[in-house]
Amino acid sequence: MFKFKKSILLFIIFLSISSTAYAAPTSESLQLSVNLVWVMVAAFLVFFMHAGFAMVETGFTRAKNSLNILMKNFITISVAAILFYILGYALMFGTTLGKIIGIDGFLLNGVEDISFFVFQAMFVATCATIISGAVAERMKLSSYVFIVVAMTAVIYPIVGHWIWQGDGWLTTLGFSDFAGSTVVHLTGAVGALTAVLFLGPRLGKYTGKKVNVIPGHNVPIGALGIFILWLGWFGFNGGSTLAADPQLVPMVIGTTLLSTSAALVSSALYTKLRFKRVDASLSLNGVLAGLVGITAGCAEISLGGSVLVGLISGIVLVEGIRLLDTKLRIDDPVGAITVHGICGIWGTLAVGLFSTSNGLFYGGGISQLMIQLIGVLAVVAWTMGAMGTFLYIVTRFSSIRVSEEEEIAGLDFAEHGSNAYELKEVILTDDSEPITGKLAFADRLNNLSSAEEKG
Amino acid sequence: MFKFKKSILLFIIFLSISSTAYAAPTSESLQLSVNLVWVMVAAFLVFFMHAGFAMVETGFTRAKNSLNILMKNFITISVAAILFYILGYALMFGTTLGKIIGIDGFLLNGVEDISFFVFQAMFVATCATIISGAVAERMKLSSYVFIVVAMTAVIYPIVGHWIWQGDGWLTTLGFSDFAGSTVVHLTGAVGALTAVLFLGPRLGKYTGKKVNVIPGHNVPIGALGIFILWLGWFGFNGGSTLAADPQLVPMVIGTTLLSTSAALVSSALYTKLRFKRVDASLSLNGVLAGLVGITAGCAEISLGGSVLVGLISGIVLVEGIRLLDTKLRIDDPVGAITVHGICGIWGTLAVGLFSTSNGLFYGGGISQLMIQLIGVLAVVAWTMGAMGTFLYIVTRFSSIRVSEEEEIAGLDFAEHGSNAYELKEVILTDDSEPITGKLAFADRLNNLSSAEEKG
Amino acid sequence: MFKFKKSILLFIIFLSISSTAYAAPTSESLQLSVNLVWVMVAAFLVFFMHAGFAMVETGFTRAKNSLNILMKNFITISVAAILFYILGYALMFGTTLGKIIGIDGFLLNGVEDISFFVFQAMFVATCATIISGAVAERMKLSSYVFIVVAMTAVIYPIVGHWIWQGDGWLTTLGFSDFAGSTVVHLTGAVGALTAVLFLGPRLGKYTGKKVNVIPGHNVPIGALGIFILWLGWFGFNGGSTLAADPQLVPMVIGTTLLSTSAALVSSALYTKLRFKRVDASLSLNGVLAGLVGITAGCAEISLGGSVLVGLISGIVLVEGIRLLDTKLRIDDPVGAITVHGICGIWGTLAVGLFSTSNGLFYGGGISQLMIQLIGVLAVVAWTMGAMGTFLYIVTRFSSIRVSEEEEIAGLDFAEHGSNAYELKEVILTDDSEPITGKLAFADRLNNLSSAEEKG
Repeated sequence: MFKFKKSILLFIIFLSISSTAYAAPTSESLQLSVNLVWVMVAAFLVFFMHAGFAMVETGFTRAKNSLNILMKNFITISVAAILFYILGYALMFGTTLGKIIGIDGFLLNGVEDISFFVFQAMFVATCATIISGAVAERMKLSSYVFIVVAMTAVIYPIVGHWIWQGDGWLTTLGFSDFAGSTVVHLTGAVGALTAVLFLGPRLGKYTGKKVNVIPGHNVPIGALGIFILWLGWFGFNGGSTLAADPQLVPMVIGTTLLSTSAALVSSALYTKLRFKRVDASLSLNGVLAGLVGITAGCAEISLGGSVLVGLISGIVLVEGIRLLDTKLRIDDPVGAITVHGICGIWGTLAVGLFSTSNGLFYGGGISQLMIQLIGVLAVVAWTMGAMGTFLYIVTRFSSIRVSEEEEIAGLDFAEHGSNAYELKEVILTDDSEPITGKLAFADRLNNLSSAEEKG
Repeated sequence: MFKFKKSILLFIIFLSISSTAYAAPTSESLQLSVNLVWVMVAAFLVFFMHAGFAMVETGFTRAKNSLNILMKNFITISVAAILFYILGYALMFGTTLGKIIGIDGFLLNGVEDISFFVFQAMFVATCATIISGAVAERMKLSSYVFIVVAMTAVIYPIVGHWIWQGDGWLTTLGFSDFAGSTVVHLTGAVGALTAVLFLGPRLGKYTGKKVNVIPGHNVPIGALGIFILWLGWFGFNGGSTLAADPQLVPMVIGTTLLSTSAALVSSALYTKLRFKRVDASLSLNGVLAGLVGITAGCAEISLGGSVLVGLISGIVLVEGIRLLDTKLRIDDPVGAITVHGICGIWGTLAVGLFSTSNGLFYGGGISQLMIQLIGVLAVVAWTMGAMGTFLYIVTRFSSIRVSEEEEIAGLDFAEHGSNAYELKEVILTDDSEPITGKLAFADRLNNLSSAEEKG
Repeated sequence: MFKFKKSILLFIIFLSISSTAYAAPTSESLQLSVNLVWVMVAAFLVFFMHAGFAMVETGFTRAKNSLNILMKNFITISVAAILFYILGYALMFGTTLGKIIGIDGFLLNGVEDISFFVFQAMFVATCATIISGAVAERMKLSSYVFIVVAMTAVIYPIVGHWIWQGDGWLTTLGFSDFAGSTVVHLTGAVGALTAVLFLGPRLGKYTGKKVNVIPGHNVPIGALGIFILWLGWFGFNGGSTLAADPQLVPMVIGTTLLSTSAALVSSALYTKLRFKRVDASLSLNGVLAGLVGITAGCAEISLGGSVLVGLISGIVLVEGIRLLDTKLRIDDPVGAITVHGICGIWGTLAVGLFSTSNGLFYGGGISQLMIQLIGVLAVVAWTMGAMGTFLYIVTRFSSIRVSEEEEIAGLDFAEHGSNAYELKEVILTDDSEPITGKLAFADRLNNLSSAEEKG
């Protein structure tokens, strides 16, 4: 008789985790297990968003800076995870000091729910990585690492404490941000804006009165990144329920799907109306706008409401990018400040308008909207103040920007001594070979058919 | 003592979703939660298939049409989700009118199971996106949008009603299509075929008697798309159980894995035998053939049976593409009609042959096979009739095809005013720089070693 | 009233799977369901690792060998799944014969837990695919297929039997390898090393005393592969719990996240210190080093310990690649032997050092470390002996290497008669068109602004 002994594996587990006694499942232990699976799946999806950010930022910038932007993305998730373990989790979720900051749980000391740490650790890096896109193609790698440290160890955890720890002053006030339009996206975007103001535009972006386009080098890989981000966002919003609630979760996923779909449609149509063509890169950014726009309210806006929120997000995105890029002359290579900042504000305010429990359009009056506005202002002030102070000090000691020569040569060569692509051999071979190479399927079919006829 | 207040977050949930009282978990509520997690995971995977389709269609067509095909894919999922919410779900799953069409549940009015809507919404777009590959490189974006509307709002929901609503006439007849070889894939492929017949082949595809190959421009990204589709299909087939059934789910995943593996092997071997070389693009399409081939029967075919179904799928694919491409002269850039249509028919009929409960090879006689055949014929007739009528009307008013100049220039330039790639700088730099750039790892190691020896 | 009849779908399931009676859920059946969902999610993630391997191996080798490496990866998962179903599962998990090999369960005969088969089938291919990277750019496709057969049908299942079946001699000895630093990664790497010794280096890799760098052609897609592998590893390690244990799973995911993050940081810093620049490709391999390094001990090493294990993994990786590439002159295009072999050994030994239950650093003495060392030596001896014998026989009959002409022309052309890329049209067009094409967003904005001012 065939019998597989899975029991041995479980036995090994018993030995190593001596404190965990394995008993018959109770309804409480089962609930823990179901919620665990849900939160872990969500954490994996949020993790995967870092692949999405990396591809978007790589695809929408120039080939000569690809290695650099990739390394920045890998460093962000890595440094963020370690710092959040050591420091950030405690500042964010520790016992409050004056509703402002957490003061215990360093190194997860005394923390029991490790699954919650894992989920939150994936979030932190999301906030920081927003900056990498905005400062792309000109910031030194080492300076960027400093910024990641400041964001993930201090600036973001404090915002998180105010809004998500439970005793923070904004929570007490009634501020509502279910999955982080403000906590994650606005914080990241304000950090990015502050960094860009210190950094200045890329060489060649603004020449006299002219605003030049610096097109991305690989839109297909950028578009894949957008799809990955959309996928990951189902975990970002869906996992913020922290429980596999059969009522709440499908609503959150449904609003996230519909808002994003609506934003893609509205940004595509709007660019068609405004510029006579469906602009691909703005439409793809429209997807992200729809995601950021519904993040705060995904759990308390109706499906119909989410379509409206998304439609507006798509238009806000197009006008927001226009405003920054051509009027304010803020050079943000991938549009991160508009996507995460302006749409983050819109998403936060949308709760005050569209919340089915207390939104303005549902008879809830203006009070929630005001609270949302206070939260936005507080987070903008704190993040800009903290990041500005930090960068002011840093820039006293050294430049955060690569030299002109390095920028022209590309950061890949300057900082990593290598290139991201080696495509010469497939492009510049003499013409005789590739033509033979094209003797692919149909020609062989034809040859074969001839052969058959002869044979 | 450190104490994290997750309760506050849950409290916020209570406030916003006032109707959901949170009680001690019962075995029924736990089952709802487990099934929810499973169906959501499956929905996410099916969503991700759209990234797979986008990459396959981009990689296997020309670079100058990349933005256009990407936009078509994003528009498909977006338009489909919104229309299915407004209209399609009601027509598909509403109370039946004469076993033909649903008549209530518009805007999900009265629908309680939102998770089922989310899962099904991901499916709809899958059906429509099949068309985008077949019509690639020559159809106007606006015309494609019309087709998506027709498919997702009307044509597909009616097929779905017949087969998946429960009261449809094909269900009553005993037609079996577990995860959609017919409902999704055949419907999409027949829509695609009809559109291609109206559209005609790409310029340069058929010159006199000659069949020309128009090779894809980026097979690696296309191959990634194939992997993503395979991954997503585990959700497509696995999630169609709608429940985390410990017996059924692993069988579905097992048959899906083995059929696909077998189809890759058979298409690779078959091209080796037939054309003397392992054809990469046909073998990669073989993966999709194996997936489509097992989709109808994944829950009622044995593991051994699934290997046979897959082996046959791989060969059907190669001969099917040959038939369409060179004999019938139907220009389908990515082979979508064969993959989803011919293999969809094969998969549907395979249920009648390999079903362990009533298949011909398991002593069940020929009756199930006949029922399967009736279903196939009905869906082909309906889809071709409806799509043909629709396109006949549309083409009375305007062309659905871009102009010759636009086709030659590429749809990216014509419809979006931009390019998908900017690789000149990494290819056409003078030779001195890249060589320095190649001073990567080993050379630096050597330099370092020398330095160490000297030092 | 609207009423959706999901019951009909369930009814179809009943009909087809007659043996599965659907009853009210018990706490045992619910536990089966929860664990099922967890293991299936993990299996999907491990499956997706094959996309990661494919992208890493493609991106880090030359463009002219891309189709070939992609096909090798697809063939690996396909052949492995089918052989594991027919043969491998039985040899690995069948009733033991002398603690050495399993002897029943062929074709899964008598096996009840199909979900465990599915999960394990994904693992097998992982082991084999390690080889494809090391032998890239010079091994014949057909020879590679032979190696995959040997690895997945015999060599790996026997190692697995020793360590994971429960009655194997290494299990009896107390050897601990939770998720496979040795079982999967070391076995694969030793197979790879053996194959490379038979195969020799690529043309042009070593010229006289000089070690030449042969750079990869598409690092962005390789970096995406690294992200996909990291994601997949959460399933690889996390799923090895085989149960949704609320205590154990988050620890496994937490150690996996932190070790990997630490390894990225240490390899990046170490290359900066050693070579003056942050080396991108070594740092990206550092991610994999951190993953392999924690795989054996992810369930019994603390979060703090995992950071240390990762920091060391990153440095071991850099020195290991240096050792093989420049000292031992073993040409491994993607560094697979170091990543999976040297780091696999390190990860296995790390259990003896860092295990919180019996590691040396936790007062457990040296005995576990010695047992780990015995396991490593046994697996190295068996794999090298078996693979060496196999290759010795194979190479008596034919060469496993393509001809010089084929290697220079590229395996894509030689074995598949085609190219992976067709980028000429976007690179070599005359300059007038692309410039027009660059009239993208901002220029149109400017034009529009002018138009507005005039209008």
